[in-house]
Parts: sequence; C-alpha cells; structure tokens
Amino acid sequence: MPSLEDVLETVNERVTPSADERQRLTAAAERLTSRAEAAIADRGVEADVLQVGSTARGTWLAGDRDIDIFVRFDPELPREKLETLGLEIGHAVLPEGHQEYAEHPYVKGNFEGFDVDCVPCYGVESASKIRSAVDRTPFHTQYLEARIDDDLASDIRMFKRFLKGIGAYGSNLKTRGFSGYLAELLVVEYSGLESLLKAAANWHPPVEFDPEDHGTASFNDPLVVIDPTDPERNVAAVCAADNVARLQHYARELLDEPTLSLFFPPDCEPLEVAEIRERLATRETTAVALVFEPPDIVDDQLYPQLEKSRIGIQSGLEGHGFAVFRSESIVDPDNDIAVLLFELATTRLPAVEHHEGPPVAVREHATGFYKAYADREDCVGPFIDGERYVVERPREWTDGLEYLASEAIFDVGLGARIEASLKNGYELRINDEIAELTDKIGTELTAYLKPEP
Amino acid sequence: MPSLEDVLETVNERVTPSADERQRLTAAAERLTSRAEAAIADRGVEADVLQVGSTARGTWLAGDRDIDIFVRFDPELPREKLETLGLEIGHAVLPEGHQEYAEHPYVKGNFEGFDVDCVPCYGVESASKIRSAVDRTPFHTQYLEARIDDDLASDIRMFKRFLKGIGAYGSNLKTRGFSGYLAELLVVEYSGLESLLKAAANWHPPVEFDPEDHGTASFNDPLVVIDPTDPERNVAAVCAADNVARLQHYARELLDEPTLSLFFPPDCEPLEVAEIRERLATRETTAVALVFEPPDIVDDQLYPQLEKSRIGIQSGLEGHGFAVFRSESIVDPDNDIAVLLFELATTRLPAVEHHEGPPVAVREHATGFYKAYADREDCVGPFIDGERYVVERPREWTDGLEYLASEAIFDVGLGARIEASLKNGYELRINDEIAELTDKIGTELTAYLKPEP
Repeated sequence: MPSLEDVLETVNERVTPSADERQRLTAAAERLTSRAEAAIADRGVEADVLQVGSTARGTWLAGDRDIDIFVRFDPELPREKLETLGLEIGHAVLPEGHQEYAEHPYVKGNFEGFDVDCVPCYGVESASKIRSAVDRTPFHTQYLEARIDDDLASDIRMFKRFLKGIGAYGSNLKTRGFSGYLAELLVVEYSGLESLLKAAANWHPPVEFDPEDHGTASFNDPLVVIDPTDPERNVAAVCAADNVARLQHYARELLDEPTLSLFFPPDCEPLEVAEIRERLATRETTAVALVFEPPDIVDDQLYPQLEKSRIGIQSGLEGHGFAVFRSESIVDPDNDIAVLLFELATTRLPAVEHHEGPPVAVREHATGFYKAYADREDCVGPFIDGERYVVERPREWTDGLEYLASEAIFDVGLGARIEASLKNGYELRINDEIAELTDKIGTELTAYLKPEP
Repeated sequence: MPSLEDVLETVNERVTPSADERQRLTAAAERLTSRAEAAIADRGVEADVLQVGSTARGTWLAGDRDIDIFVRFDPELPREKLETLGLEIGHAVLPEGHQEYAEHPYVKGNFEGFDVDCVPCYGVESASKIRSAVDRTPFHTQYLEARIDDDLASDIRMFKRFLKGIGAYGSNLKTRGFSGYLAELLVVEYSGLESLLKAAANWHPPVEFDPEDHGTASFNDPLVVIDPTDPERNVAAVCAADNVARLQHYARELLDEPTLSLFFPPDCEPLEVAEIRERLATRETTAVALVFEPPDIVDDQLYPQLEKSRIGIQSGLEGHGFAVFRSESIVDPDNDIAVLLFELATTRLPAVEHHEGPPVAVREHATGFYKAYADREDCVGPFIDGERYVVERPREWTDGLEYLASEAIFDVGLGARIEASLKNGYELRINDEIAELTDKIGTELTAYLKPEP
C-alpha cells in the first residue's frame, strides 16, 4: 500500500501547472487586461481591470483553462450603464465572444485556447456593500492572495482534485458541493491538506468556521464558513449535507488506505441495457418515469426546479399512500430528455383509506367531523380509536400509475418551467421501458442502480 | 322529539327495582347473612358479615341478581387460615355452590334465584392497609352509603344503564370501561346524572377528580378518580381512552337528541355471510386471520393476552414493512375459536428494503456500518443520503402471508398462553375464508365492518 505522502506527491505532480502552462496563461491574461484597459480608455470611463479566480491566485489545476477578467466600475454608475459598458468592453476584449447572463450580462469567449469570462462589476468599498454577487469576487481574490504561499497553493490544488474525484466539487446547483473559494478557505483554515482531511474525518456537523471572527448572522447549514470578506454570508451555504458527509467518508478512506484513484477515479463504465433491466427487475419495485422535454433554462435553474418537482410529486404520491422507495431527477448529457424517476414499493392500494379525525374531547371540531361523516354511505365509521374519531373513506387514488398519469400531479409544488414542460406532455415509462432509455441516460441509471457514497 | 326529562323518566321506571324485587332481595340477603354468622359461630372464630356492592347500596338495576356477602376476618389471621375458613363458611352458606378464584378462593352459588358470591376478606383499619384487593370493597360500600340518597340512587341506576347501552360499562379487561363504583362516584361528584353528562360532554382528558382531596400519587390515565378510601389508587385506572371518548360522544348525542335507544339499544342484527364477504371484498384490502383454539383461562387473562398478541404480531408485520390497515382480536361467544384478524394494505413488498445507517459524522459507528455492507454483493450501496449512510438490502419477508404462516411470529411479544395455543397450530384464513366464520363470530365481524362510536 502506498503511503499518503507517496500518493500526494503523485497528485501534486499531476495537478501543478507546468512552467510553460503558467507562462502562457500569464501572457494571455496580460494581453486580455491590456485590451480591456484600452477599451475603457476608448470610452473615457472610470474603471480598472483585474484578474480574479484560481488562475489569478495560482491555485488552478493543471489543464484548467479558465481566465476571469473583471472590469470594475464606479459604484455610482447606474446599473443600466454598467451593463451596456460591460458588454461593449467585453466584446472589445473578446471579439468572437458571446453574451451570457448571470446576475447581469457578461461576455464569454475563447482566447488563445483559454476560456475567458469578461465580467463587469462595481468597485464597492467592502464585500458587505456589494450591489451584485460578482462584486464580491475581487475581495475573495485579494483575501486569499495574501494568505496563500506555494505550499498552500499545492495543497489547495490537491484538495480541489480530491473534491472532484469524489464528486463534491462545485457550487453549481446540480452538485451543491464545495466551491473553489470554499475549498481554498478550508485549506487555509487548517494550514494544509492533511490536517484538513484528518479534521474533516472527525467533523460533527454543524461545523462552523469564522476565520475573521466577525460573523453576525447564524445559519442552519451543516457547514458554515463565514466569508472573511462579508460577516453576513456563509460561503458554504450551497454545500449540501450529502457532500459534507461525502468529504468525511472519503477523507477517512484516503487516510485509511491512500490511493490515487480517489483523486483520479476511473471512468464509471455504464451498465448495458440488459443489465439495467435485470437490476431493476430484481428489486421487485415498480419504477415509473415521467419523461419529458427539459425546459430551455440554465442548469442552475433547471436542477433546482427538477428537484422541487421530484419532491413535490413524491409528496403527492406519499400523501396518497404510495410509498416511494427511492426517486431521482435526471437530465441526459445532451439535454434531450428530462426524467423524474419514482420507484414505488406498490402501485395498488386498498379502496378505502384510514382517516383520523380530531380527539373527541375537542368538542366543536369533533362534532363537526362526526356530523360530516356519520351519514355517508360510502364510509365506514366514524368510530372511536383511542381518544379520536376515525373513518375509513374511499381512497382518492388506488392506482399510483393512474395518479402519475393524471392532472393531479399539477396540484403539488412543481418548478414553474418543469410544470410548463409537463403540461406540454410527458410519457410514463415503467420498468423495462425505463431501461430502454439507457442510450440516453445510461450513466445516470447506472449511478442510480450502483450508487457510491 | 322527546325531552331529556321524558326519556330519563322512562329509563328510571325501567331500571328501578320494584318493591317486590327489593323485598325479596333484602330477605335473601338477610338469610344469607344469618347463615354466614351461624357458620362463623360454629367455628368459634372472630369475624363479621356484611353485604356489599350495588345491591347493598340500593343502586342495582332492576333485574340484576347479584348479592355479595363478605365475611370479614381479623387482619392477624394467617392468609392460609383465612382461605380455609372462608371456603368452609362459603360452602356452609351456599351448599350447592362451587369454588372460584380471584386473589384468593371464594364460593359462588345460587340462592333463591340470586347469584351469590361469598367472599372472605380482612377487616383492615383503612383501605390503604388492604392485604388483598377485596379488602377494599367494604370501604367502598361504606363510603357511598353515606352519600347516596334516593335521588342519587336513581341517577346512578340511569347512568349505569347508559354506560351499558353505549358499551362502556364494566371494568373487566375485555371492556376496559367504567366500573360500578366509578359510575357511582362520578354521579356523586356531579350531584346528579344530568350535570355529569353535561360536564362529560366538555371534558378535556386527562380529567382528574379527588373527592376527598387526599391523592398522593400521579397517574397517566385519561380519567383519574382518586379513590376516596385510598389516596394512592385511581378508581378509573382500567378505563381506556376509547371509553372515556365514548362517554363524551354519547353524552353529547343524548343531550342533543334525547332517545331511549341510547339506554336500551336494539340488538345489533349480525350481517349475513354474503354481506360480510361483499363488504370485505369492496375494501380491496387483504384480510388475514389467525384462527386457533383459545386457551382455557378466564376472560380477564384471555383478553389482555389476545391484545398483547395482536399488537405484537401487528408490530411484527409493520416492522417488516407490511402496513396493517386495521386489526382486531375476537373470541366467539362459546369460546370455541380465537381469531387474530389483520387487514393488510398489501401482502407483497419489493425484494429490497431501505435500511438507514448512522450519520456519517458518528465515525466509529458509521465506519462499522460501512464496512459491514460495502462488500455485500446482495446489497445496493452504502450510499449517502443527507447526513447518513443508506443501504438497500434484501428484505427478509416479501410476502406478508408467508410471514404470518411462519415461525417468525413467535419472535414478537405474544401473550404466554396465546403463544402456547398458536404453537399447537393455527389456521390462516384469507378474505372469503374469514367470512365463512360468520356462524361463529358474525356479531364481531359485523361490529368490525360496521363499527359504531
């Protein structure tokens, strides 16, 4: 068994950008900055240009090709004006670029082989005075630059690689994992990777850090890292409990049995359609999938809306008595189909349902309940069970598949755009018919049927 | 609609013993007392004789034919001696009588058409010093005699009749209702039936009374009436929440719409077998009955053991994932068959079950769980869900009927004598096969399918 030191040495070699890569990146960033400065001068506005993100801090992983150029305007500049100027300058910097939209529009493009974002922001006094989320970024870079030496930069790169390897890297709303900034803060907090991993292996969430000891708000998240540049913000707000647990699990694995594959996992080979069919069948559940066209929205809107819809329909099923064994929301890599998958323990329920009334002692409520049901021919009871009235009344849905095929699914909380997509039509697929989707979502079905921590 | 007054007048007429009945009872009681006194004198022991119970207090219902004669010995008398003497005197009083057994043996027999119990007890100083439960009875009679006038005696008789009518009378362990003593105390407490009913309609259990304001213990029961003769005893300890609620429900009904039928309900006509079959079928549940020979024990042992067994097997079913829609324990009137009836929402479950592990943060426990399942080919996972590990493992029982037919039912808590009976063999009947038991348990199945409050 290799030692942790051996493993980390190899990881470090692989993730440290070569001198050549560094040089090319620095040169590109400088040329981009000059272009931006020229464009600012051309327009006679007050603004400065700065490079932010991991490539600015020297903490990027070898092969990453992201350069972030921020154009920082006077905070007095009206927002509209900032947007127009930001786009003008962006297009001047990246003539081949295209417009994207976060909190406000910016230009994205390729430059000498690098993926470049050219983003306008406000040069506010402090991160707590930001006017849009991106205004915070320069403060983050400034804070970390002052605290990261070469050793810590290595450890940060290895930690990011580790988080990628275990699937917990990224603060996008599909992953809900550790952002780059969060990863860097944690390594800085523990003064290195190994002590971070050893500590994480023993965390008892909620785990809270406040590097600048200035936090003013309290948070309900499993991991809380008060932003050193903003006392009211939890840097880890988006990080889900699953990913905190995942870090803990794999930190223990790595310390216990150091292996390169935790940093560079082999590609997961998707199961063949026959195998997926077989595995679904042996569970003896009924897997039901709502298959529909995904709405044309960015992933950070799509995934939360899918999750909301999955949870909504699951609670609809369970509210009607259909126990959901497991469920998942899936979009294929080409964004061709969206799938809300529900695995039901049973699809058929009795014709009657148990309906618990109020305690008999709550007179007004109890009498109202009793009178409402006493003469109903289609009900059994009301009778008394313990201190309460109970009736057995006709169940609204006795077939879970009929429920999922009906308009009733629109009575639950769905993501707005998912609701619209479903209203345009969806296909209900069951068991083998889901396995037939393997060519589109084989990887996701494999992950569902052979889940890893 | 008749007024409450009209209804109560009729009830009162029906439940008040006639002068002739009273006379015959008094005469019989006197003769029994004389016989007992003679038997005591014959043996040269210290003891007195007293009549107890409702016939002693004048609160019995017309037609009731119970006379309770207590022979009260010196508390210094050894228990063995009391038992021998008690039986000797009992047999002298009731030459045709036979021995029965409560906390100690006594003689029961018929005398001039009355059902007579001749019970030995200790003449202790106060009810809190009793040596066996029956020692308390003379104190109860003494306490109530001093507080019941003719009007209250009428109200007590009507209240008892009401409790009988609604099925809440009796402190036996099948009914778990209101004992005669409890009924009398409540009428005394409220100084009459009507104010008792009006108050009960508004009770918010737990309801507590302490007529002598001397209670020393606290109780967890829905109704607490501290025994005026024993500060540590709740007279209503055996009274179930159902029966408290039942009294509340029917008190409201009576006040709302006074009717004689609440006191003298018509006999419930049992459903025909075809109707029972039909009603079971329309529920679309699976009714399963364990049918076996009831053990030869008194009802106050039989019913608690049946209930324990019903609850035990239900928790076994539910622990294995089989939701029980409703259940019941039944013995036919001739004690020929005992039935534990479970109505299942579904009898088939998936081959896998969801098994939640510890939070990943609880390191030792979590690591143990992970290692126990990580290499099991027959399990899916462990994976992470929220803060916890989860595995999907083979379900022990996928067929609820197979479970009920197996030895596994003996792993749950069963009444000892029920367990023995079941081990001697039981028959598993399903749906229509249960309806076929109508000739034996038609009334009970009718009550199950058409339950009243």
